[in-house]
Amino acid sequence: MATAENEYTLDSVRKALVREEDTIVFGLIERAKFPFNFHTYDQNYLQTPDFRGSLVEFVVQNTEIVQAKAGRYENPEENPFFPENLQSSLVPSYPFTKILHSGAASININKSLWKIYFDDLLPLFVASGDDGNYAQTAASDLSLLQAISKRVHYGKFVAEVKFRESPQDYEPLIRAKDREGLMKLLTFKSVEEMVKKRVEKKATLFGQEISLDSNDDSKEKQRFDPSVASKLYEKWVIPLTKEVQVDYLLRRLD
Amino acid sequence: MATAENEYTLDSVRKALVREEDTIVFGLIERAKFPFNFHTYDQNYLQTPDFRGSLVEFVVQNTEIVQAKAGRYENPEENPFFPENLQSSLVPSYPFTKILHSGAASININKSLWKIYFDDLLPLFVASGDDGNYAQTAASDLSLLQAISKRVHYGKFVAEVKFRESPQDYEPLIRAKDREGLMKLLTFKSVEEMVKKRVEKKATLFGQEISLDSNDDSKEKQRFDPSVASKLYEKWVIPLTKEVQVDYLLRRLD
Repeated sequence: MATAENEYTLDSVRKALVREEDTIVFGLIERAKFPFNFHTYDQNYLQTPDFRGSLVEFVVQNTEIVQAKAGRYENPEENPFFPENLQSSLVPSYPFTKILHSGAASININKSLWKIYFDDLLPLFVASGDDGNYAQTAASDLSLLQAISKRVHYGKFVAEVKFRESPQDYEPLIRAKDREGLMKLLTFKSVEEMVKKRVEKKATLFGQEISLDSNDDSKEKQRFDPSVASKLYEKWVIPLTKEVQVDYLLRRLD
Repeated sequence: MATAENEYTLDSVRKALVREEDTIVFGLIERAKFPFNFHTYDQNYLQTPDFRGSLVEFVVQNTEIVQAKAGRYENPEENPFFPENLQSSLVPSYPFTKILHSGAASININKSLWKIYFDDLLPLFVASGDDGNYAQTAASDLSLLQAISKRVHYGKFVAEVKFRESPQDYEPLIRAKDREGLMKLLTFKSVEEMVKKRVEKKATLFGQEISLDSNDDSKEKQRFDPSVASKLYEKWVIPLTKEVQVDYLLRRLD
């Protein structure tokens, strides 16, 4: 498994992106279990002199500290939301395959993702209300944020693999710092349409209330509006992944 | 939403158990993303003088500390795996509906669940191998453990609601400390069979590789063996939930 996981080819990268769709859809459905729970995001709710910020910031920052000590961010596929707080890993280092250019380490668009997640995405699919489960809400926000972040930053691997396949197409655009040209070269509208449709299909299947009575599950009641999943991909996941790809390629020849 | 979440009736309790099935199935599929990753469970892997134990113990204990401060265990539906380490909540208290007898607080079978999870359940469905993602593996173990623990300890609410419906059936057995009689009264074989079938159906649907090519998703390749989900319910989730119910009822008249 170690080799399978750590080899990066066009095919393995594609499979990882497809698998991550399931994780993101599960995460959406799990977050939707809870109502909005405003106090999770309230800057004045947490009562401690040791921390300034909202409950979700408290949970994400402190959980990231635990996971960093356990070695999570040693894997170049992972990017923290609060890199400024982290301590080093306490576990022996693992030989993760290093295929990325060293410039990759400085690419982290989690600050933008954080803003989009709370300002734009959450209000799209979370019911209003308050059930008091703020810690659980914050934990499910973290899981979903991590899943989306992993997908978006996988753009580094996508870009590296594409670059290796046809450096002659990329090099002139990189040297000319032609963001627009690179974006065009990376964009396949028909693939993007297919991804959006597949994600919506997954959200339809995974978000239905399954019962034993019916033979036709597609008619069953939905726990989750599947169009939210395709909108998430259309408006944010696909564009941000391409942004990461372009950012990576622009550093690729440094 | 606050009232809906916090009212306990036979119907609301049943709905919560059905919804928790999805969370457990998602958790199984997500854990199966990673190979076994032995070092996650190795008592000698973590290199720090500050902690003795495996990486998964480190991640679970420290994440529970964070979540406890964020108020997770104020909700009587939640039970920690390492209650001995927790600090109090830093958030204002929320008026969770208190329907349980005070004896409920002392019922926590997470130590048994922990042992079953690592000794019996994991080897059933996780591929052998090592991909270095130990922190992520431990985090997904924690999510799944929390989901199963929540289901099993929901037995307290199941028992309370059943007791209130027909105290005359339960009181003589409780006074006689008749575990076997209580277990019999709580057991509905046909319901258990239905639950197992529904869980297996969920695991089949949620664990398939969804593509846009096929119209018949039931024929698609499975990422996850759905019989593991029904076995989990048959061998552990259903019996442990009943054990919690009986433990609760035996304290109900104290």
